[in-house]
Amino acid sequence: MDNLQKHYRPENMSDRVALLFTKLLRLVADIFFKKKYGHRAVVLETVAAVPGMVAGMLMHLKSLRKMEDDKGWIKLLLEEAENERMHLMTFIQVAKPTPLERFIIIAAQLVFIIIYSIIYLVSQRTAHRIVGYFEEEAVFSYTDYLNELESGRIKDQPAPKIAIDYWNLPLHSTLKDVVRVVRDDEAGHRDVNHSFANLLNEKKFNKKEAKSLDFK
Amino acid sequence: MDNLQKHYRPENMSDRVALLFTKLLRLVADIFFKKKYGHRAVVLETVAAVPGMVAGMLMHLKSLRKMEDDKGWIKLLLEEAENERMHLMTFIQVAKPTPLERFIIIAAQLVFIIIYSIIYLVSQRTAHRIVGYFEEEAVFSYTDYLNELESGRIKDQPAPKIAIDYWNLPLHSTLKDVVRVVRDDEAGHRDVNHSFANLLNEKKFNKKEAKSLDFK
Ligand SMILES: [Fe+2]
Ligand SMILES: [Fe+2]
Ligand SMILES: [Fe+2]
Ligand SMILES: [Fe+2]
Repeated sequence: MDNLQKHYRPENMSDRVALLFTKLLRLVADIFFKKKYGHRAVVLETVAAVPGMVAGMLMHLKSLRKMEDDKGWIKLLLEEAENERMHLMTFIQVAKPTPLERFIIIAAQLVFIIIYSIIYLVSQRTAHRIVGYFEEEAVFSYTDYLNELESGRIKDQPAPKIAIDYWNLPLHSTLKDVVRVVRDDEAGHRDVNHSFANLLNEKKFNKKEAKSLDFK
Repeated sequence: MDNLQKHYRPENMSDRVALLFTKLLRLVADIFFKKKYGHRAVVLETVAAVPGMVAGMLMHLKSLRKMEDDKGWIKLLLEEAENERMHLMTFIQVAKPTPLERFIIIAAQLVFIIIYSIIYLVSQRTAHRIVGYFEEEAVFSYTDYLNELESGRIKDQPAPKIAIDYWNLPLHSTLKDVVRVVRDDEAGHRDVNHSFANLLNEKKFNKKEAKSLDFK
């Protein structure tokens, strides 16, 4: 399947909860932002930088308590958070948030940290699946944004300097090029988080199997 | 001054609070561990990995809310946390914690996260100064540990594989070599955190100055 159209089909209850949660938030975002892609990106990127940090921190603390190695997961998650923060720093140069959006960002951060931490503590698997689905949507949205830019319905503009430095883009790159590399990042996070969820699923399944063997 | 003897002289109330807090915890650790340096390292490294993560996360969230660049601080702090976790993973190979120590680790992590987060939210400057002072003590303790190893009062042993890989040590390194590189790391964290506190102090002073100029 095309990397931009990739969709993980839900296989169990945890996956279905994650997909429903994602589609619900997608609907809210669609109603609120409509076709204002720049503003949409600014607000959603402030939220996107939360899960990696929360998951990385919780895994770090767990690794300390259990004195267990994390097999490199923490670093990947913190890098995801850092990368999302760079998306924000980039789009802030493209669309300045309105006062209402600023207020929403502060409120959303508070609410989302709490909700995501709870989900993570209840089911790490569902938490990563949610990010996997979020990122599927991010890939779709940035594809729409790119289409608007390519068709000229949204005017292209020079890429912000911060983006040229961060992604090592050619000097005369434009917003189109930035949206393309950001979309690649999102596709990367999507794959990482879906595969984390898959691994946690296997682990759970193996435990169940081991237990059921115990009773034989 | 010798890098191992470095001490930042307190200059204001925030510094004095930080020093007092540090000396108090040092006393508790001395009473509890006495000369059991291996065990001391295991327990204290689980705590040492907390401040960098808490500070990094809070700065990340603040940077998202304010849409401000962090000037590279977040990365440094998260790297500190990661580095401390590697200290833990190393010393766990040298001294297995007792059940009582395991319980203390879990309780201390919970209490310390809460206390350190509160300190950080109240005074970021004091929070970094505290870590600066903690790390001064860490340098002293690892120097003591090294002296015991060099004098033979504590038996040297081959370096754990994880340490050889992480610090790129020669294959036949021993615990002595590990303690030396760990001590260098601690001296690095000490300098980073003291200089963060200094910068925050200057910023505060400049604001005050700016304000007092306002009223002229
Ligand atoms: Fe993003
Ligand atoms: Fe993303
Ligand atoms: Fe350490
Ligand atoms: Fe340290």
